[in-house]
Amino acid sequence: MRPVITLTTDFGLDDPFVGIMKGVILSIAPDAEVVDITHGIRPQDVAQAAYAIKSAYAYFPKKTVHVAVVDPGVGGARRPMAAEYDGRRFVGPDNGIFSGILGPGARAYELARPRYFLKTVSGTFHGRDIFAPVAAWIARGTALSKLGPRITDPRVLDSPKPSFDGNQLKGQIVYIDRFGNLVSNIDSDWMDRCFSGPGNLTVMAGKKKIGPILTSYSQARRGQCGGIVNSWGHLEIFCREGNAAKCLGYGISETVAVSRERAKP
Amino acid sequence: MRPVITLTTDFGLDDPFVGIMKGVILSIAPDAEVVDITHGIRPQDVAQAAYAIKSAYAYFPKKTVHVAVVDPGVGGARRPMAAEYDGRRFVGPDNGIFSGILGPGARAYELARPRYFLKTVSGTFHGRDIFAPVAAWIARGTALSKLGPRITDPRVLDSPKPSFDGNQLKGQIVYIDRFGNLVSNIDSDWMDRCFSGPGNLTVMAGKKKIGPILTSYSQARRGQCGGIVNSWGHLEIFCREGNAAKCLGYGISETVAVSRERAKP
Amino acid sequence: MRPVITLTTDFGLDDPFVGIMKGVILSIAPDAEVVDITHGIRPQDVAQAAYAIKSAYAYFPKKTVHVAVVDPGVGGARRPMAAEYDGRRFVGPDNGIFSGILGPGARAYELARPRYFLKTVSGTFHGRDIFAPVAAWIARGTALSKLGPRITDPRVLDSPKPSFDGNQLKGQIVYIDRFGNLVSNIDSDWMDRCFSGPGNLTVMAGKKKIGPILTSYSQARRGQCGGIVNSWGHLEIFCREGNAAKCLGYGISETVAVSRERAKP
Repeated sequence: MRPVITLTTDFGLDDPFVGIMKGVILSIAPDAEVVDITHGIRPQDVAQAAYAIKSAYAYFPKKTVHVAVVDPGVGGARRPMAAEYDGRRFVGPDNGIFSGILGPGARAYELARPRYFLKTVSGTFHGRDIFAPVAAWIARGTALSKLGPRITDPRVLDSPKPSFDGNQLKGQIVYIDRFGNLVSNIDSDWMDRCFSGPGNLTVMAGKKKIGPILTSYSQARRGQCGGIVNSWGHLEIFCREGNAAKCLGYGISETVAVSRERAKP
Repeated sequence: MRPVITLTTDFGLDDPFVGIMKGVILSIAPDAEVVDITHGIRPQDVAQAAYAIKSAYAYFPKKTVHVAVVDPGVGGARRPMAAEYDGRRFVGPDNGIFSGILGPGARAYELARPRYFLKTVSGTFHGRDIFAPVAAWIARGTALSKLGPRITDPRVLDSPKPSFDGNQLKGQIVYIDRFGNLVSNIDSDWMDRCFSGPGNLTVMAGKKKIGPILTSYSQARRGQCGGIVNSWGHLEIFCREGNAAKCLGYGISETVAVSRERAKP
Repeated sequence: MRPVITLTTDFGLDDPFVGIMKGVILSIAPDAEVVDITHGIRPQDVAQAAYAIKSAYAYFPKKTVHVAVVDPGVGGARRPMAAEYDGRRFVGPDNGIFSGILGPGARAYELARPRYFLKTVSGTFHGRDIFAPVAAWIARGTALSKLGPRITDPRVLDSPKPSFDGNQLKGQIVYIDRFGNLVSNIDSDWMDRCFSGPGNLTVMAGKKKIGPILTSYSQARRGQCGGIVNSWGHLEIFCREGNAAKCLGYGISETVAVSRERAKP
């Protein structure tokens, strides 16, 4: 069975960087299947990358090696890292890029053994020189414990948490997808805990009333906005056959609030 | 021999959606080879997707499973579908996305058996929850007839047809590629039937005379526009080493007309 | 072991062209592993493609077949070509796209045997009709000498070379990557020959003083520009966690100069 290696970067697809990483991987692990998660992370936006990997990793087979390289600190003091969690492996800089994933039970290691790197390590492209070759060696069976000493304090991003005042559950937009859907940090767990489920809930975004939480896009009229629990279990504001970000003029960090709909008198 | 699965969507490459579908496929059919046709379909433009798949499908090996997901009706009443035609298989929503392909001889089935889906089916991402897993099961050998009941009335898009008045063959621009080439709905079959071949034909686009139909881009001078039968057998307006869409200021639906060139007196 | 075929084109990813080439390849060489180097070359920019392939090719395993199609002369007089160099194979138009690679020791052949092409060869898409199938046949073991006669005068692009006046090494920007890094044609060999290494050197770009050559991005302050020898061994102007092309307002062809830093009195 072919080992699977995924790539998530901010390299874009116009330069040869991603292709070069694949060449390095195939030179070491010729039977690896390399899959792109995305290379369209905004340059140096570690938080967006963390969100993408968190959403995607568990849909891949166990033993998959997920490589993530959004690495503004390349060549500096940040540690290169490999980790294991939930049967998958993760390789990238220790800069918080895996903070959505590495919970209790994760084991992380610093990449400290140059024998698993390319012979020459540049100061600017560790994706090619360190992360791709290490991922390939892991795919070939190298144990993580061989790569270097344990990391017990991996970097975790400070991410905004929703808050509940007994009446209103308040969160914010944390991701906007290509369709202009505004994804909030309010997930179904939060709604379950605060309201025992999404039934009869109503959504506000910024100062605008969006309406009840629907269960499919087609429940809204064309051009109308609505709330929905999206495919990652997060509350999302959409516009049917339109672009909610553009329609509403909202972006990352905009407030989203959920409350119990009042019965009309 | 590895089964081939292709993907055509409007998901773009900046979000993790496409990677997630590949993870789902590899979890079910680990030896599948997944190939992107394009993920750059304009959001919700089913007609553009239909055109892309029609142009590409036959260049893939027999047994290839072509998955297409441009799905504004996701979670609503439109049926999920699998079909067989010309030795290839097709998986996607029954919204006309395969109307360029599914002619007489096609057999289509509704996807009605949740055992071939992911355990939880969201209301917003059937690419992940239904179409990817079904494609993987087909690639593994599941017969289409096991997926659900026959569909005898698959949705077909209304697409503009050329017209001929005995003198002029009139069509319109239906696709514009990245080079700005303006692809019309007039194909060589139409020209053969109306004029017995493309010899001595002259092309108009909108109100501008383009000139004779050439057989290679290099027959035009740099910056000059010309007509050509393109690699899909369609009449196309190009600008040599330039962008015809920009030069001419024309877009989708602009008129294109072909007529016999008059001998000069 | 699966043969590896890479693709470098200016086709973009919004049209089905790249997918079609992969379909053709897999129809002939079903076990080939097809890897994208980039499809984001600016339309018809052969020099940019040459640069991308030169930077990437050697990171792939020996025997890899590198296909490059930026081909403004398609259908015209330029010869289709295959070549061998440094254990890799190269397939594309003979228009200078491999001029960064094909040094002494390269053997090049004209593609003159239609039995290795698709049955019908269009005038507009040799990527599909000639280059993809030839690459697949090479991957399957066809010797290059079977493809056609030797080419002894492959086209080579005129590329700007740095100059040294005994004091200042002058070059220019030849590539700008997605991060806005300005890559010059001055490589470490040039700096070694002119100054015996990069120590104590100072960089100018246009009329602006950039400063000393650093060894990692993190040595600059946030938002500050610096010089660095990049991962391809070229002198590059970067802006830490910013975009040097935008900050400095510089583009392709802008002057870059290196000189020995004077000790302050």
